[in-house]
Formats: sequence, C-alpha cells, structure tokens
Amino acid sequence: MNFMEERIREEGRVKEGNVLKVDSFLNHQMDIDLFERMGREFKERFKDKNINKILTIEASGIGIACIAARYFGVPVVFAKKSHSINIDGDVYMAEVESFTHMRTNRVIVSKKFLSEGDRVLIIDDFLANGCALKGLIAITEAAGAEVEGIGIAIEKGFQPGGEAIRDMGYDLQSLAIVDGMDAESGEVIFREQ
Amino acid sequence: MNFMEERIREEGRVKEGNVLKVDSFLNHQMDIDLFERMGREFKERFKDKNINKILTIEASGIGIACIAARYFGVPVVFAKKSHSINIDGDVYMAEVESFTHMRTNRVIVSKKFLSEGDRVLIIDDFLANGCALKGLIAITEAAGAEVEGIGIAIEKGFQPGGEAIRDMGYDLQSLAIVDGMDAESGEVIFREQ
Repeated sequence: MNFMEERIREEGRVKEGNVLKVDSFLNHQMDIDLFERMGREFKERFKDKNINKILTIEASGIGIACIAARYFGVPVVFAKKSHSINIDGDVYMAEVESFTHMRTNRVIVSKKFLSEGDRVLIIDDFLANGCALKGLIAITEAAGAEVEGIGIAIEKGFQPGGEAIRDMGYDLQSLAIVDGMDAESGEVIFREQ
Repeated sequence: MNFMEERIREEGRVKEGNVLKVDSFLNHQMDIDLFERMGREFKERFKDKNINKILTIEASGIGIACIAARYFGVPVVFAKKSHSINIDGDVYMAEVESFTHMRTNRVIVSKKFLSEGDRVLIIDDFLANGCALKGLIAITEAAGAEVEGIGIAIEKGFQPGGEAIRDMGYDLQSLAIVDGMDAESGEVIFREQ
C-alpha cells in the first residue's frame, strides 16, 4: 500500500451508496503534509512531461493543485463554477454534471489564462464518472493547449470515468484506485498498481 | 510599497463599480511564488500566536490558506457553500451575503473539524464588507474556538468590513489596504501601513 491508500484505510469512512468520506484529510479538512507527499508523487510520475500550468476545478481540487504546483514551479488556474446564464466570449466553458449534488454546473476559465502552447497538468481530488475531468479536458483543448497528464488523489475504479479517460489516450495517474467498498464492514479494496 | 501592493499596481485592473481585478495572480490564475511570500509574511505577522488551525472559505481562499499552512505547520479547514435547505446538526452554519453575486450563501463547517481549544487563523483573499469574514468568525466562536488572527490578501479600506472587524477587537492583518481606486486612470491608492 502506498501512503494514500494507507491514509484512506486509516481514516476513510465508507457510507451507503458507494460514498467514501475522506473529509478529515482531503476535501474539508486538508492535511498539508499529505498534500506535500501527493505533490512530490505527482512530480515523480510526470517528471518527463514539460508542464507549464496546472488546471483544477473549485473547490476541493484547489489545495492539492497549489501544493503540487510548488514541485512543478508553475502557476495554477482553477475553473470556476458559473451561475450566470450569459457567458461572455472571454471564457472557455464546459457543462459538468455533478452526481453528488444532482445538478449541472457550468464551469469557466478565462481565455487569458489558457492558450495554445500551454502544456497542462490537470489535478483533482476525486474521479468517479469523470464529468468534471472531461469538462477540464474540453476546456484545455478548446484553448488549443495540450493535456500532458492528469493527476487524481482517489479514483473510484468501479465507476466508468477512469477507464473512459484512459481509453481516450490520456496519461491518467491516480494515487489510489478503489475497486470496491463495503458500507457494512467498512472495507475498501484497492487496485494493485 | 510591499510585494503585494507592487503586484496590484503592476497587474491589477480597476473596473467601474469599485471592482479590482486581480485574477491574473490571486483568484483565478494563482501565482504560487507570490502565495509563498504571502505565507511567510502571515507567519511573520502572527509569529507570537499559537495557531493550530487555518480556516478559510471556498473557493479563492483555499490556495492562499494551503500555502500559508506550510509556514504554520497546521491543517486547513475550508467552509463550504451549502445548497441544502436542511442543515443537519453536525455542522456549524453561517449565512454569508455575497455582494459580488448578489445572493446569500449558507456556509458550513463540520463540527468534527473545529472544536473548543482550537486557536484559529482565518485567511481569505478579499475583505470588503466583511460578510464572509463575519461568517467565519461566527462559526469559529460557535465551536468554542479562539480567533487568534485574521490574514487577508487585499482589503478594500473604503468599504466598512475592515474597520468593523478591528473595532470588534480582532487582530486583522491585510497585506494591502486599498483606500481608493479610479476606473478611468486605473490608479490604486494604498493606505500607509
């Protein structure tokens, strides 16, 4: 087990409906020492990529992205959830379905901060159905930038996002891939990596 | 001028309606080297305080808080905007008016992550009317925790939040205090600190 799998096993709580609560260290309270290890690990996994920008999405991707950015020496851009119906021409926009909140968000990135020639590492905390990630990929490609890699803290391997994105040819690296969970026993099964 | 004032003068753009756009380095694209300087500066200003937790609010406070947390060696908790009408008993809740978006958000913090005995540094990117900050103060005090200090990147000194919060006796430190702006000339006037 790697450090992320260990932490999930220690502190993650499995709830009914395939919910894995990791709010004590990842997405409500944030353990910055853990984020440092994640940042180093992403740098190691993407060391051959010439990344010049990290792209993430509000809110829980931001902390991980900012700490990881220290190891790459690059700025972070976060996609914003937009409540405006009218989106002006100065932004790239994607529709992102949220299964957790059962609604569709529009996410936007200003055209000023993503351009042709950018070599982007996309970072997020969770990957399940892949909707958020597909939105970030669409925005990156609309800008004419390259997705050099995708770094995820926890992938739910039993949901279709990870496979779909790997099948599209992207270099997707998840620090932990959960292949199964049992709400009754609390057990979490990780994929061998 | 300090580093934050310099950066605002170089890259900030003044818009009609007392809007100061700093999205190229602070709250859309994020300059992590700048955030490091901010973190060191907050540590210097609060070096006599025995802080064990940083509290911020999604989304644009999170990056600053996570980098600052490295200098304090503490975890970060971020208050979440809640879209649920029913708030269960496991969270502290505050109503926060957003003038930018002209609506009221409920923000919540799980009771698990803020408790009596916690000595909290509150961090956010902007202070104007102080609504978000007052919400974070209310949540901290509802938990029986102490607000040891408040660190803000940019305070709009011509709006009432900063004065109100200093009058309440809090140790509020803003890296830049803008006392006036002119949309026509683009000029920004800083308060001497």
